Amino acid sequence: MAGDSHHPERSAVAALAEEFLAGLREWLTIPSIGVDPAHHADVHRSAQWLADRLRADGWPEVEVWDHGPALPAVYACWPAADPGAPTVLVYGHHDVQPVDPVDRWHHPPFEPVTSGDELLGRGASDDKGQVAMHLLAVKAHLAATGRNAPGVTLKLFIEGEEESGSPHLRKLLEDHRDDLGCDLVVFTDTGVHDRDTPTVNTGQRGVLGGEITFFGGTDDVHSGRAGGAIPNPATALARLVAALHDEDGRIQLPGFYDDVREPTERERADYAALPFDERRWLAQNAGGAQAVAGEPGYTTFERIWVRPTAEVNGLSSGYTGPGLKTIIPASATAKISFRLVPDQLPENVAGQLREFVAQHTPDGIRAEVSFRGTGVPPYAISPDDPANEAVRDALELAFDQPVRFARAGGSGPAAVLQAWLGVPLVYLGATLPDDRVHAPNERVVVPLLLKGAEAAAHLWRMLPERLTR
Amino acid sequence: MAGDSHHPERSAVAALAEEFLAGLREWLTIPSIGVDPAHHADVHRSAQWLADRLRADGWPEVEVWDHGPALPAVYACWPAADPGAPTVLVYGHHDVQPVDPVDRWHHPPFEPVTSGDELLGRGASDDKGQVAMHLLAVKAHLAATGRNAPGVTLKLFIEGEEESGSPHLRKLLEDHRDDLGCDLVVFTDTGVHDRDTPTVNTGQRGVLGGEITFFGGTDDVHSGRAGGAIPNPATALARLVAALHDEDGRIQLPGFYDDVREPTERERADYAALPFDERRWLAQNAGGAQAVAGEPGYTTFERIWVRPTAEVNGLSSGYTGPGLKTIIPASATAKISFRLVPDQLPENVAGQLREFVAQHTPDGIRAEVSFRGTGVPPYAISPDDPANEAVRDALELAFDQPVRFARAGGSGPAAVLQAWLGVPLVYLGATLPDDRVHAPNERVVVPLLLKGAEAAAHLWRMLPERLTR
Repeated sequence: MAGDSHHPERSAVAALAEEFLAGLREWLTIPSIGVDPAHHADVHRSAQWLADRLRADGWPEVEVWDHGPALPAVYACWPAADPGAPTVLVYGHHDVQPVDPVDRWHHPPFEPVTSGDELLGRGASDDKGQVAMHLLAVKAHLAATGRNAPGVTLKLFIEGEEESGSPHLRKLLEDHRDDLGCDLVVFTDTGVHDRDTPTVNTGQRGVLGGEITFFGGTDDVHSGRAGGAIPNPATALARLVAALHDEDGRIQLPGFYDDVREPTERERADYAALPFDERRWLAQNAGGAQAVAGEPGYTTFERIWVRPTAEVNGLSSGYTGPGLKTIIPASATAKISFRLVPDQLPENVAGQLREFVAQHTPDGIRAEVSFRGTGVPPYAISPDDPANEAVRDALELAFDQPVRFARAGGSGPAAVLQAWLGVPLVYLGATLPDDRVHAPNERVVVPLLLKGAEAAAHLWRMLPERLTR
Repeated sequence: MAGDSHHPERSAVAALAEEFLAGLREWLTIPSIGVDPAHHADVHRSAQWLADRLRADGWPEVEVWDHGPALPAVYACWPAADPGAPTVLVYGHHDVQPVDPVDRWHHPPFEPVTSGDELLGRGASDDKGQVAMHLLAVKAHLAATGRNAPGVTLKLFIEGEEESGSPHLRKLLEDHRDDLGCDLVVFTDTGVHDRDTPTVNTGQRGVLGGEITFFGGTDDVHSGRAGGAIPNPATALARLVAALHDEDGRIQLPGFYDDVREPTERERADYAALPFDERRWLAQNAGGAQAVAGEPGYTTFERIWVRPTAEVNGLSSGYTGPGLKTIIPASATAKISFRLVPDQLPENVAGQLREFVAQHTPDGIRAEVSFRGTGVPPYAISPDDPANEAVRDALELAFDQPVRFARAGGSGPAAVLQAWLGVPLVYLGATLPDDRVHAPNERVVVPLLLKGAEAAAHLWRMLPERLTR
């Protein structure tokens, strides 16, 4: 085919595809569920599998960083032939989500199966598939260019705690500051907009999660004895939650929007140009929600990508079993998480929530607020950044079509990596929003993974000319 | 003592007290927990124990009504010597509450113990103690008057399903319409205001309990995928709960207050004259609540006795385990119960709640409302009713001090009995608000039970002259 002759990377990927898939399937059989201590040995096995594979692929420097308390990360380096070439650090993770509810899987989650052009199994998309994609990319890059070293110095940093919220990432970065030095980070844990619409992701929201508990008395009280004459913590908490948004859905924490960066006209135009089928989005991306809703003046994509949000994740109070218990509960708890956008900082929002709770705690109620960790900061990079333009051009070569910029609504350690390493961070991924990551029957679309590998191979070739050192 | 010579009933009660306590302790060893099917055999044993005791006491007519599905009730009748004497039906129950949390009891709940002037055990106060009080009262009445039949025709109706909400009471009343005919009901499942303040109860609030569920999507959704762009059922439910009361705590169901009967000046004056120690009330009656709160313009007693209330009994939505799950829940549920006052009807309030929920269900949310049974109607009788004045006078004789009228904030089948039997219903009881009924370490104050028995003995003597037939 004509395309193949123009893009030797494409031919190289095609030639290596079968071997690539066999390896990925083998890796997917290892249940590296990092959040489950019963599977920590599997996380170690997974790291070892990856290290062995990298060595077999010819990576000259491969290490398993396994000095607790962090679950093992895999580090590898392949220096460029040209000592002046830029250094790129590829970030991904090899731990996977739990598989509950396991009875909703159509096959055992760690016995991957192929169906049409899909590969199904836990981790196929998030994130083993995309890490394996990079291993393939390097081999294709070398084969296509006929070199025995990549065009850029490549470093791989594949952590084992992403699904646990990367609790030891800062420590790993600190301990390995010298190893991890680079000119650019390529973050590989996001994907493209849809099968027919390749996109470059340019950011992720941050997240801060916490818990608010309102205490009334020391015990639940029979509502016949005191109902109507003492504060009900469940009612008080409902009033606080109701006050969290105004009628338009704007979040009422004091100063919450002060640091919110509005999207540029160019970004808004890019998002508006993406195909959006509301019914399909509700069914496939929004858990079967019945309607869209949100902040006026913003589209659905803007609401989930560039606007912050406050969501109740859980409520609990009093009696919740079958039937009825006519009590005034002693306490009520709401779990609430905020998705944050640049330039909001989780620590500032934590303070705003404490202030908001203090303002909304009525007489006779005592409030407790706690947070899960320190939160994840948001991250975004301009579509105009030269590295981002290089990624876009690499994807256009691989997909043979124009590529737009988009963002992701979820969260990841991009801002931490960027801040710690002090270099730009770009996203390169080829998975889909409806890959059922974190859910039963996770899958990856194999032709997209191959396109992603081709794009990465293009990128390693192109970057030395495109990166301003 | 002078008192004894004036009140032969008092001497008779004192002479019978030891035998009375021995019998009650025996009955309290039977764990007749009606709500627990594992204890249904014990409910049968309890009914049999009572029937045997009544026969031993000389009641000429004793039946165990044990034709399911109702748990067994005990019926007994002792005709007055004078065929023209009025007939009084005494209502009580022999089923008891569960004992959870059992580890907070200081002794096994069904091995009653004596401590000072208290008898401790499940059912000591609610309601076996008060039923036994009536058995003692009849014996004392006969002994004091030297007769071999009571001054009024006495009927006992002691049901076995009160703690289950009396689900078959209407059926029992229907099946035994001829047996249960009477001129007055004496309801014995409430008590006096405090140890030093004897009172006659004149009413109970009704209750209607239900559950509201808001449904969003079919599945929980990762808040990174859709957060900010779809309705959150937990937030929507919190807004509904917040809207249930206005800033003054007035309930916002449409028409909710239309049928509410204001207390009379005499009733308000009676309640205002009762001793009230706010700190003690909060600690002993309100589960250690930190402050009183409620509808402006009403005292605490008015708020719990003569004003209706809406209380959230439970909230549940999304993830409520340890840590955090950043989801938008698929649904959210609130259990809510209303305490009602005359002349509110549970069926009307059910309709008002359905209307309120419809008004407060936002786009994209589907609501379901369900009720537990048909509710319990409120009941109150005027302090000026001649039967009520007779009860007050009987209590004044027994307690040697003035007796005021009060009410109870809880609920019971008084209205059902009154409506079905078509005669006045008065309350006679001698338990205390801090008897820890429905809670660990339930107790009854024995000298108060003996006063109650004396008052009942006075009442059976006095009633023929006092009751207008």
